[in-house]
Amino acid sequence: MRTSIATVCISGTLEDKMLACARAGFDGIEIFEQDLLVSPLSPEEIRARADRLGLTLDLYQPFRDFEGVEEAVLLENLRRAEAKFRLMNRLGIDTMLLCSNVGTATIDDDGLAAEQLRRLGDLAASYGVRIAYEALAWGKFVNTYGHSWEIVRKVDHPAVGLCLDSFHILSRGDDPSGIEDIPAAKIFFVQLADAPVLSMDILSWSRHYRVFPGEGGFDMVAFMKHLVRSGYDGPVSLEIFNDVFRQSDVERTAVDGLRSLLWLQDRAAAGLHGENHPMELRTMPDVRPPAGLDYAEIRTDEPESVARMLAQLGFEFCGQHRRKPVQLWAQGGVRVILNGQRAGGAAPAISGLGFQVEDPHGAVERAVGLKATPVARHNTADEQELRGVSAPDGTEVFFAPTAQRPAWVEEFGAGGSGGPGGSGNAGDLVTRVDHVNLAQPWQSFDEAVLFYESVLRLETRPATEVPSPMGLVRSQVMRTADGSVRLALNIVPHVLEDAASGPQSYPEHIAFQASDILAVARRAVAAGMNFLQVPQNYYEDLAARYPLDAPTLATLQELNLLYERDGNGEFLHFYTETIGNLFLEVVERRHGYEGYGAQNAPVRLAAQYERNRLRRR
Amino acid sequence: MRTSIATVCISGTLEDKMLACARAGFDGIEIFEQDLLVSPLSPEEIRARADRLGLTLDLYQPFRDFEGVEEAVLLENLRRAEAKFRLMNRLGIDTMLLCSNVGTATIDDDGLAAEQLRRLGDLAASYGVRIAYEALAWGKFVNTYGHSWEIVRKVDHPAVGLCLDSFHILSRGDDPSGIEDIPAAKIFFVQLADAPVLSMDILSWSRHYRVFPGEGGFDMVAFMKHLVRSGYDGPVSLEIFNDVFRQSDVERTAVDGLRSLLWLQDRAAAGLHGENHPMELRTMPDVRPPAGLDYAEIRTDEPESVARMLAQLGFEFCGQHRRKPVQLWAQGGVRVILNGQRAGGAAPAISGLGFQVEDPHGAVERAVGLKATPVARHNTADEQELRGVSAPDGTEVFFAPTAQRPAWVEEFGAGGSGGPGGSGNAGDLVTRVDHVNLAQPWQSFDEAVLFYESVLRLETRPATEVPSPMGLVRSQVMRTADGSVRLALNIVPHVLEDAASGPQSYPEHIAFQASDILAVARRAVAAGMNFLQVPQNYYEDLAARYPLDAPTLATLQELNLLYERDGNGEFLHFYTETIGNLFLEVVERRHGYEGYGAQNAPVRLAAQYERNRLRRR
Repeated sequence: MRTSIATVCISGTLEDKMLACARAGFDGIEIFEQDLLVSPLSPEEIRARADRLGLTLDLYQPFRDFEGVEEAVLLENLRRAEAKFRLMNRLGIDTMLLCSNVGTATIDDDGLAAEQLRRLGDLAASYGVRIAYEALAWGKFVNTYGHSWEIVRKVDHPAVGLCLDSFHILSRGDDPSGIEDIPAAKIFFVQLADAPVLSMDILSWSRHYRVFPGEGGFDMVAFMKHLVRSGYDGPVSLEIFNDVFRQSDVERTAVDGLRSLLWLQDRAAAGLHGENHPMELRTMPDVRPPAGLDYAEIRTDEPESVARMLAQLGFEFCGQHRRKPVQLWAQGGVRVILNGQRAGGAAPAISGLGFQVEDPHGAVERAVGLKATPVARHNTADEQELRGVSAPDGTEVFFAPTAQRPAWVEEFGAGGSGGPGGSGNAGDLVTRVDHVNLAQPWQSFDEAVLFYESVLRLETRPATEVPSPMGLVRSQVMRTADGSVRLALNIVPHVLEDAASGPQSYPEHIAFQASDILAVARRAVAAGMNFLQVPQNYYEDLAARYPLDAPTLATLQELNLLYERDGNGEFLHFYTETIGNLFLEVVERRHGYEGYGAQNAPVRLAAQYERNRLRRR
Repeated sequence: MRTSIATVCISGTLEDKMLACARAGFDGIEIFEQDLLVSPLSPEEIRARADRLGLTLDLYQPFRDFEGVEEAVLLENLRRAEAKFRLMNRLGIDTMLLCSNVGTATIDDDGLAAEQLRRLGDLAASYGVRIAYEALAWGKFVNTYGHSWEIVRKVDHPAVGLCLDSFHILSRGDDPSGIEDIPAAKIFFVQLADAPVLSMDILSWSRHYRVFPGEGGFDMVAFMKHLVRSGYDGPVSLEIFNDVFRQSDVERTAVDGLRSLLWLQDRAAAGLHGENHPMELRTMPDVRPPAGLDYAEIRTDEPESVARMLAQLGFEFCGQHRRKPVQLWAQGGVRVILNGQRAGGAAPAISGLGFQVEDPHGAVERAVGLKATPVARHNTADEQELRGVSAPDGTEVFFAPTAQRPAWVEEFGAGGSGGPGGSGNAGDLVTRVDHVNLAQPWQSFDEAVLFYESVLRLETRPATEVPSPMGLVRSQVMRTADGSVRLALNIVPHVLEDAASGPQSYPEHIAFQASDILAVARRAVAAGMNFLQVPQNYYEDLAARYPLDAPTLATLQELNLLYERDGNGEFLHFYTETIGNLFLEVVERRHGYEGYGAQNAPVRLAAQYERNRLRRR
């Protein structure tokens, strides 16, 4: 598949944009008129530069408000078009996007529109260019792809065809399956955009909130399959109007965009298995979602305080790495690594996650194929080689084989009485990592969603918003269907990010699942754990909210436990104090509770805010 | 009027919020339940603290999903309510907000709802509290204030009345005039919120985009007038869910909120002139919008470069201030002050604007009454006293009498051949300040709109969005009806703000109006002016866009002039280079053109971005 992207998607000057698209690996670009007319480069220079970068110039866009007009207006429109055709000749672009008329159409007559497009087609042909007619979702008379195709069929001119745009089709809830019935030769261009499910006017939605395929709520894979089945084999181009992308790092956003097309090809190919179509889809090693977490890694210069918390939760020290300042702690099959390398004085934080996958080699290959950055890691000959990539938020994602007792633990000398295996002791009340909560800068949130979706095959769940003293925190859960891996991506409110301490000052955490949270909490109390203190007011509200008996309430309060219900399900959890950018949580899920205690999250955020401020004073 | 505000409007802990509201000058607050239950303060401590701060606790909210349910659910709801009544007794709050049922209502029967509310009223009365029933715009069965009033009338219980919320009424396009017909004694509470005109689902709109009265698109003054005419005399409270306010400085946001209520009282009182109602509205000196700009002040340590630009545009040096390192430049009645005080090495920037008003003393009094911060200014006995206040973006706003030749110019020794009077020379091609473009940090944009509206009586015009290499720039024009003063407030894209140079790195400018822009441009060329260079591609597009003849196009291009049409109107303008955070613009408006060249702004932003980057390399 030929990949392309409209220059309007990304930030910077036209030069910046072209360079970033070439570096990311796009085959071509659409020149968005605005980018050209503010550029000091001449059309010839742009053409030469694209050539040097190995980029084709696939489309000139947009041309607006042409058809359905009085003759005098039409003549003026043809004059405008001719100037653009001349410009396209200089650029070496053979296709122009024509949007269905929004502003000046006065005559609702398909026959007239077709006749006017035919005249445009004649003019275009005389310049050796062609017109890709697109139905905007808010076009005055033409706003569905079905209608634009009717008109193009009426035009019946070799220089006039269709442009299909997934946003304009899917935003209206239109059925894209009709694309399969359009002759491929009449589809001149295809633009793709995904979007979050929002209920607002389509124009605002389109102009500000589009995202790359896989980052929104449209079924882009199904759309792609219809397109492939139509026999279309031209460029597939991203046209994303997104306020954040427009102001973010251009190279990074370009890579994010290309990743979306790589992911989409892979998924569409999987869905078209065995079918034969002209378009060749690039695929990657097929990997299954991870079966669980092999380990969580915490980066810290001073492992003592984190180690103490782990011990209080029942973890045992399994040993020091034979060569590096790295400790392994475990409880049954739950392993936590405290890594003193490269901490450089930074506060303790989650630095890496090891995911258990069937085929670690294939998973790395897939991740790298999806343009993820490999993590540099030194290995001596006798050490287990673990390979991984960087997630957009900087977390290192490693791929480990699925094993009860992984080989790499042998690199750690024996420490405490226990071992990092899966057999477990009677005291192993922590049974697994329930979820990991990672802070995301708002600029890279959409990128992170696509990363975890494409690289780890996680699924997105509906996002929630949690009030806190410093603003609303948006929380997006991504997980495997079976719940074996669950990540909560939290978008950090802006104020925090502006603080001197940077975006990471929003603490992240690892939540452990316990079979008996009361026992874990009591053991932690006995071991002197500093719990996050839950206010009395919370328990009084709890008593009003749920018909809990007095002894239960007293126990919850005594142990600083939080409580939430969801149908029959019950959720009990507690938090530790925060050390650096890290705290820990222990949860117990009863009767199939599937949430994350969202109602209680404000209590935690307020308490952490208060403590953090007291410490700064 | 008793002013109040819900704690959910602002950021921080409950303690922070209470302190900020008291300092801003609110009479009372609504306790939003979430803020209480995450607080370490007991209800008794909260009550005592409010008392010490001189704040009344006006409302406890929200209580949800009560009425229209089966008996078993009702009993559970009464149990929930009773726990809250006990809590309210401890807090000393006598009114609870009850939202119309959204989630659990199953029976659409006004009679049943009334009967259930009556039972709640009996219970409330036994605790000495009362219920203010509010129709949420998205309530399941009850979602208009008319309907909630019908039910309350049916309930006919002294402890059950109405809560009216402007958002829930105006967001649905409902007619608020019916408020006048509700007996004042049955209106237990009133909440106010404004909102920008958006077309999205009401729930999202309400939860994220509400703003303080005067900052949005609702007719809040008309709403207020209906309320006053009803005879209501209780608290009028702000309930604003706004993502930005929730993460902004709490004290500043509280002041912004109080300002909105002061403005609203003043405007409502003006509209109710001569009528007699129980509610006493606080008013301020009535001032008319400014008649023009007395001067613009530029803060700079090195006045030479800015002075050179002014001279190239035909301004003359009128002299140095007799006591301070301040220069006065003028062209006819257009005056620019170059102020070397307090520049402290900072880049040249717009630091102050002098507005010509009929009654400078009243204008200052009004501004200070609206909680604007007075600007400290030293005056010696023989100097003209100019008084002013700080705008939210830091610009100093001064109030000067309307005069052709203001008295303060006498403080400047005679310099060049001209004088800063209004009589003018033949060479005075610049006739007035057309508009001033000020950068606004996104956190204080809404505050700025209300400030200029309330303090200067400027009107808002529809906002536009301008694409730039670093993101979309939102531009909001505020002006007097007659156009004598025009400000363009630009929200700075986020990336710029993150840069080391801070939010002010987005350049601001003063646009001068010329009677003959070609002559001004030619004179500037002759004087060696550095124009902002406009790319060739722009002129080629212009030729395609408008039927301009070749000589006109050649002249435009030769002089780096930009061009835009609007119906019959024509707009010609050019920009100077940027010095520090400042550049200048000259415009000519022909045939009643009323815009600001928005189509050309991207050309300017791209050229400035490119130059800025080149300079940094």
